[in-house]
Amino acid sequence: MASGSRTRLDPAARRAQLVGLGLEMLSTRSLDELAIEDIATAAGISRGLLFHYFPSKRDFREAVVRAAASDLLDHVEPDRSLPIVEQLRSGVQAFVDYVCDNRDSYVSLLRGAGGGDPRLRAIFDETRSTIASRIVNQLAHLSGDQEPPTRVRLAIRGWVAFGEEVILDWLSEPVPPSDLDRPALVELLDQALLALVTSAAATTPGSEPGSPGEGG
Amino acid sequence: MASGSRTRLDPAARRAQLVGLGLEMLSTRSLDELAIEDIATAAGISRGLLFHYFPSKRDFREAVVRAAASDLLDHVEPDRSLPIVEQLRSGVQAFVDYVCDNRDSYVSLLRGAGGGDPRLRAIFDETRSTIASRIVNQLAHLSGDQEPPTRVRLAIRGWVAFGEEVILDWLSEPVPPSDLDRPALVELLDQALLALVTSAAATTPGSEPGSPGEGG
Repeated sequence: MASGSRTRLDPAARRAQLVGLGLEMLSTRSLDELAIEDIATAAGISRGLLFHYFPSKRDFREAVVRAAASDLLDHVEPDRSLPIVEQLRSGVQAFVDYVCDNRDSYVSLLRGAGGGDPRLRAIFDETRSTIASRIVNQLAHLSGDQEPPTRVRLAIRGWVAFGEEVILDWLSEPVPPSDLDRPALVELLDQALLALVTSAAATTPGSEPGSPGEGG
Repeated sequence: MASGSRTRLDPAARRAQLVGLGLEMLSTRSLDELAIEDIATAAGISRGLLFHYFPSKRDFREAVVRAAASDLLDHVEPDRSLPIVEQLRSGVQAFVDYVCDNRDSYVSLLRGAGGGDPRLRAIFDETRSTIASRIVNQLAHLSGDQEPPTRVRLAIRGWVAFGEEVILDWLSEPVPPSDLDRPALVELLDQALLALVTSAAATTPGSEPGSPGEGG
């Protein structure tokens, strides 16, 4: 992809170039610090022209987050030719690899999306939901395409949050833990998914029958 | 606590009053939207006097987040007179109750802390760590005060993230799920903790002996 030159690009390619530059910059700064000026300079275009493609900084930021989310989803897309259990395992492996290899931008995105902007939050929630639904479908396939109960669905979504936290904590250990290398981390997450699903499936759906519902 | 009146309060009481008002307002607006003007009006003091107690909006916000975190930690403080397993269970119950009862302000805090401010992020991380360490200690007590391996420690921290995600998802279901009432949610989280710890403890610490370490 051309960058830094005043090459004429068609609008789609120019947009993709700008978003790509934004993604690159995320590895050294937070989403909040993404300066439109720097992007324009790196692309060799004027600030005004950048605003032609993205009417506001917020729009630009949203496009960057959307691109990162879709990149992650492509990355963890299961290979449907594999048996389900291996699909799950390789998905976990891909998730760990993605977060490890894109640590800084992943943290920026996670924090940015956690911030005040509901549109970013929505993209992030959607991404988690997509990952969770893929797993739900894979497991449903194993159990004869039965829709899983709420508790299993929630446990799978919770596992995605669990995985993010564990990977980021693992990465932030001052020295790589000698008792947990990267393959062991993948195994930890993989086993955790199994353990959570099994445990959730075994939970009594209403543990106090006859008690008044306390739904929030 | 006096509020809305021009009562003279000593500095500590005034600070506590202002923070308390901030906490109250978090149930209807985000941390970002906490307007200093509204807090001053509600307290019946001038904007200038408020800035006497909190030099900047950021300082005020930090004090509010710190108060909320300490409130949560008090709330989930285990009753050490109980057997460990019951301490854990009642801690989970208290965590679920706290998040359910303070849903809007909890979401505001979670998102605010996820945002750009590293000081808020630090408070949030600290709170998660405190909850996780308490659980680590309780479990260590069960296993003869042995320091748990990294994988168990990370799994417990991950469980806190799991719990937050599951409770908030549960609260955001369009109708209270008929197959998962609040006691069942507590059971789900409680069993998940047990399942995660057991599963992490059973994970092979280095799953590929002889392979080069891949520590980030």
